[in-house]
Amino acid sequence: MSIDAVNHQVRLAARPQGLPTPEVWDHTTEPVGEPGEGRVVVRVSHLSLDPAMRGWMNEGRSYVPPVRIGEVMRALGAGQVVASRNPDLAVGDHVTGVFGVQEYAQSDGAGVQKVDPAVVGLPTYLATLGMTGMTAYFGLFDVGALREGETVVVSGAAGAVGSVVGQLAKIKGCRVVGIAGGPEKCAWIVDELGFDAAIDYRAEDVGTALRTAAPEGIDVYFDNVGGEILDVALTRLRLGARVVICGAISQYNAEGRTPGPSNYLSLLVNRARMQGFVVFDYADRYGEAVTELAGWLREGRLHSREDVVRGSVADFPETLLRLFRGDNTGKLVLQISE
Amino acid sequence: MSIDAVNHQVRLAARPQGLPTPEVWDHTTEPVGEPGEGRVVVRVSHLSLDPAMRGWMNEGRSYVPPVRIGEVMRALGAGQVVASRNPDLAVGDHVTGVFGVQEYAQSDGAGVQKVDPAVVGLPTYLATLGMTGMTAYFGLFDVGALREGETVVVSGAAGAVGSVVGQLAKIKGCRVVGIAGGPEKCAWIVDELGFDAAIDYRAEDVGTALRTAAPEGIDVYFDNVGGEILDVALTRLRLGARVVICGAISQYNAEGRTPGPSNYLSLLVNRARMQGFVVFDYADRYGEAVTELAGWLREGRLHSREDVVRGSVADFPETLLRLFRGDNTGKLVLQISE
Repeated sequence: MSIDAVNHQVRLAARPQGLPTPEVWDHTTEPVGEPGEGRVVVRVSHLSLDPAMRGWMNEGRSYVPPVRIGEVMRALGAGQVVASRNPDLAVGDHVTGVFGVQEYAQSDGAGVQKVDPAVVGLPTYLATLGMTGMTAYFGLFDVGALREGETVVVSGAAGAVGSVVGQLAKIKGCRVVGIAGGPEKCAWIVDELGFDAAIDYRAEDVGTALRTAAPEGIDVYFDNVGGEILDVALTRLRLGARVVICGAISQYNAEGRTPGPSNYLSLLVNRARMQGFVVFDYADRYGEAVTELAGWLREGRLHSREDVVRGSVADFPETLLRLFRGDNTGKLVLQISE
Repeated sequence: MSIDAVNHQVRLAARPQGLPTPEVWDHTTEPVGEPGEGRVVVRVSHLSLDPAMRGWMNEGRSYVPPVRIGEVMRALGAGQVVASRNPDLAVGDHVTGVFGVQEYAQSDGAGVQKVDPAVVGLPTYLATLGMTGMTAYFGLFDVGALREGETVVVSGAAGAVGSVVGQLAKIKGCRVVGIAGGPEKCAWIVDELGFDAAIDYRAEDVGTALRTAAPEGIDVYFDNVGGEILDVALTRLRLGARVVICGAISQYNAEGRTPGPSNYLSLLVNRARMQGFVVFDYADRYGEAVTELAGWLREGRLHSREDVVRGSVADFPETLLRLFRGDNTGKLVLQISE
């Protein structure tokens, strides 16, 4: 059962200031070894690249412990079991889990999910049927308490979570406006995903564009970006609006203190709420979401788009930066083996 | 039925920039006249002074229309009916209502409430048994969704609303920390009102003091002040915390754009929500609140303190500024007649 292979890994070498530069990473190798009792070895084929990774690199209290200096960088991934001493997982099983930025991961099976690549490709299990889809589903339906016929505005609308959020809101009969960067993304969310309108924040004044695209105001604002766009969206809330704080990608690499939403008193005037969430809290309801999302995928009412970059673990640092440049459309995945 | 008296009034002459200076007010007089069919004339004895007044003076969309230039300044008040052609209100009745900053108000009775000065004094009907009490009650219990045994932090804790909020939380068995300005206010809320701890924001670092006073963090933060104190409180939220946005007195007179709460992502990490409200939305439940609050007043578990300034309507402009200087302890009331 021993595996004569070298495991290439990317470890966190230092805490970044601002964008994670090459110096914050260590590229290491170690032997794969064989699994201990109850454990498996997974050969990782796909890494999920998520804005949240930037937060995991910071010191200090957050919703998960920070990645320690010297530790393999935390990452969700998909792959195949290549050695097993765990009765629940057989060699050949396709799985997803928190495998880290490395080619081979040892696991005791906790949090490891068997998936069927005959249904949808492995990248989709990291996207719409993975944490991305869970985040969109519970964020919009639970935290956002979406009701049919409402007006939904989502930022980062061509990103992994945003593109699912908008489609889910369309399925529920809502008017959906997406905010994204650049004409291609804006065209994609309207033409391919069926959003009612798109706002190109790089080319348009978002406040003016919102007045046109959502003239009666916003019932649910699903925020992935923070910063100035959040602040402008706050000025357009309707009575009883819900602002879902999913992320703030515009802020994650800021150095020093960043400005907060100066228009937060719109929450008072409009009897509105702004609420954050962490998808892991919904773990015992993932099944419900997967069933619904898979159904909509099958019916063609929901499109999962993965932006798959082919390379090796060594390409992780540079690929991660694509997220913060807004280079990806849909879910960014790094494929490191077939 | 005609009333041979002159009605002294204070009208809004111009929209203030920053603090309302004497020039934004017009002092006018007009004859009182007699009430039309279905109407009453109220002789106003007490004016309620509220931070919200500053917002009513601004142009633009809010939860109520702005006071128009030339209009008598909007104010809640208490007084006595001196002429009536309304079958529901008799001469001699004591009443509260939105009477404006003037000595005599005409009213068709809408929103006018009969009160009994034998039970509590008229100022208390503007304070704990008026909008102030309603705001504290629904803000803490409904918006804040307070649960027994939680830790509550309230800013503006020696103010009208804050002092009631803290006492209500104590009645519900919570740990209560008040943030106020100056040693007298801090002593009052602890020694007289029974708060567990007070933080003097003028003398202490609020973040450090919160770590000591609420070492396990904040379940409900009831905010009356906004600004830096809100931002610091956000760093101390517990999982599932509720931030109640009741007001932001530190911001109302700011000129230009004010900084927002830069720590708002604490809402995400802590799965917390920040929610605004307007007490008028609870109008059909005021009765429930009055019954409970009056009961606690009677039992001596709740203390209503009114900071009554004696003067005339002409003293309104200067008295209003006391709110923004933080000069008042408890509810600020201007008494303009016996």
